[in-house]
Amino acid sequence: MASINYPQPVIDLIQELKRLPGIGPRSAERVALWLMQSPKAQPMVLAESLVAAKQEVSLCGDCGFFTTSAGCPVCSDHNRSRQLLCVVENATDVLPMERSGAFDGYYHCLGGKLSPLDGVMPEDLNIRALLRRVKGMSGVEVVLALGADVEGEATSNYLAEMLESLDCSVSRIAQGLPAGGGLEHADELTLTRALQGRRKF
Amino acid sequence: MASINYPQPVIDLIQELKRLPGIGPRSAERVALWLMQSPKAQPMVLAESLVAAKQEVSLCGDCGFFTTSAGCPVCSDHNRSRQLLCVVENATDVLPMERSGAFDGYYHCLGGKLSPLDGVMPEDLNIRALLRRVKGMSGVEVVLALGADVEGEATSNYLAEMLESLDCSVSRIAQGLPAGGGLEHADELTLTRALQGRRKF
Repeated sequence: MASINYPQPVIDLIQELKRLPGIGPRSAERVALWLMQSPKAQPMVLAESLVAAKQEVSLCGDCGFFTTSAGCPVCSDHNRSRQLLCVVENATDVLPMERSGAFDGYYHCLGGKLSPLDGVMPEDLNIRALLRRVKGMSGVEVVLALGADVEGEATSNYLAEMLESLDCSVSRIAQGLPAGGGLEHADELTLTRALQGRRKF
Repeated sequence: MASINYPQPVIDLIQELKRLPGIGPRSAERVALWLMQSPKAQPMVLAESLVAAKQEVSLCGDCGFFTTSAGCPVCSDHNRSRQLLCVVENATDVLPMERSGAFDGYYHCLGGKLSPLDGVMPEDLNIRALLRRVKGMSGVEVVLALGADVEGEATSNYLAEMLESLDCSVSRIAQGLPAGGGLEHADELTLTRALQGRRKF
């Protein structure tokens, strides 16, 4: 009696799904079998979406946000303030900033953060283009909006140093209590930062 | 200032990923952006796997298990016992049975279970083909291996009734304590079934 397994195409599909972030072997099997069996599943539509997203979307050569053949939606928006340039780690960080509604300038996505342990050095990030842009926007305020972890801090410090000699001011977003968070849930470092960043009421 | 969103192909991809079972809006966004950004992502390979799995794999017309152009791996295996036919709900139930190594007969996948509330009636299941197969395998033991929930019970009872007049014996898999499970974790119904199903030591 031969041992039975799923047909090879199904095994291949499970294998590919398993590579996605947050999807383990069991989820991958469940998703693959749902795709094969459920009358509601549209595996072909999903496949087409993947191909379309990969083929039609690229990163803007200036700011690093997602762009299509229609042009970068940020860089081509001339109603934004040319006095503000927000530096974020990844293209995916632009949308949370936009949803906050508190920023109306331009963005610059670094494509990562400095992390010598993982082999990410300054030349691996989109820093040269940032310096060129800042030179072209004289008197701009560069807002560093990088993560509050060690690599984010290191990247902020490095950028502040590089920008020092240019005609721009450099600021960074505040660290402190998250909205809605009580003191009892805040860790010591967060409270230290919140105290250090206190402002006149 | 126009509000910024991901390009349409990325939004479409997030939409499609969100339809997968167990994947919510946040996971879908995370997976889509990982597929767009990570150097390790292979969206085209995933798309090809989806197309291949959909095009090359179908359900066996006899037993309902997954099959390719090479033929059904179960039905074409003549080393199995023709005295045993195991009835399961879905094609996905065959592999757990096979992995147990305790069954060497053939399978029959119903494609679901009776559930009048969800509009699943006997004619929606692969029951007619089951009766035809049983008639062709005279003296076979039909092992009902359906779930232990209400619909599984109802389906088992219905099948037992339909098979009564045919030249076959009907059995069902046991209900009781799961392997490794202590009494303190078993619910009352499980213990009732375990007691009812007790066997001479």
